[in-house]
Amino acid sequence: MNILVISGSPRTHGRTRIAAAYISSVYQTDLIDLSEFILPLFNGEAEQAELMRVQELKQRVSKADAIVLYHSGMSGALKNALDFLSSEQFKYKPVALLAAAGGGKGGINALNNMRTVMRGLYANAIPRQLVLDPVTIDVENATVTEHMAASIKELMEELHMFANAGTPGV
Amino acid sequence: MNILVISGSPRTHGRTRIAAAYISSVYQTDLIDLSEFILPLFNGEAEQAELMRVQELKQRVSKADAIVLYHSGMSGALKNALDFLSSEQFKYKPVALLAAAGGGKGGINALNNMRTVMRGLYANAIPRQLVLDPVTIDVENATVTEHMAASIKELMEELHMFANAGTPGV
Repeated sequence: MNILVISGSPRTHGRTRIAAAYISSVYQTDLIDLSEFILPLFNGEAEQAELMRVQELKQRVSKADAIVLYHSGMSGALKNALDFLSSEQFKYKPVALLAAAGGGKGGINALNNMRTVMRGLYANAIPRQLVLDPVTIDVENATVTEHMAASIKELMEELHMFANAGTPGV
Repeated sequence: MNILVISGSPRTHGRTRIAAAYISSVYQTDLIDLSEFILPLFNGEAEQAELMRVQELKQRVSKADAIVLYHSGMSGALKNALDFLSSEQFKYKPVALLAAAGGGKGGINALNNMRTVMRGLYANAIPRQLVLDPVTIDVENATVTEHMAASIKELMEELHMFANAGTPGV
């Protein structure tokens, strides 16, 4: 099973990267960290499709059996990366959604927005989703709390369940 | 009354630019066209706040009495531009939302997502909103249809009404 985690935070320091790295390491997934994997601003011109980095993005999303999207409350970086992609890479592919949040309830809005965007790409955004409040991240030890680790485990199990069921029509 | 139109499409050719230019010209507004006004990908680092272009963006949004956000179905470029801004520029400011759409109903999702994002910036997204299907744009003459021109007029009147009422607490 080839799972790809896309960490949507453009910030090089922050809780999103800790949690994304945790998931990638514990569940041995591929990882695209958009604070390092810098894309140009999408402009719809054909030349951009030729860029090595854009081709790499498309290939890694295409070959994944399932995707984990981790985004901070409002990340243009993730949105921009998705602009380069289409239903060609996402159609019917199971996608798990996580949002970093400041502690309020804004994470839910971020998840709802991302779910709508995923629908537009014909992805299969799975029902289970997670908001990671600051208290769920152990910054000092660069990991997540035990409680959040259990929630992530459940999320990943559901993602596997959908991925194992196979992609409809394929 | 200083109204700022932000055209969110990153595409240099397209219907969004025609409609945004139409609004800016007919209603004599300021215009930031994100297909020309290129911003770096937001990364949250302090150095970016020093960039001339970022300072210009903040200033032009700050000094506007009201904002018109025109975005294509899914524009990382607009999302990225908003990443540079905060409630400091948007708090209680009336904002009109328009979405370019392919002819399906995806434009409504784009508007709903953008309304949620505006709430997060404490903007006052006004009730009236518009989806511009391809049939509403007269590409040959680089303008909008008569019917859409009337709808835009109503939108702009509502935006003026809110702007004239003044910003609460200021």
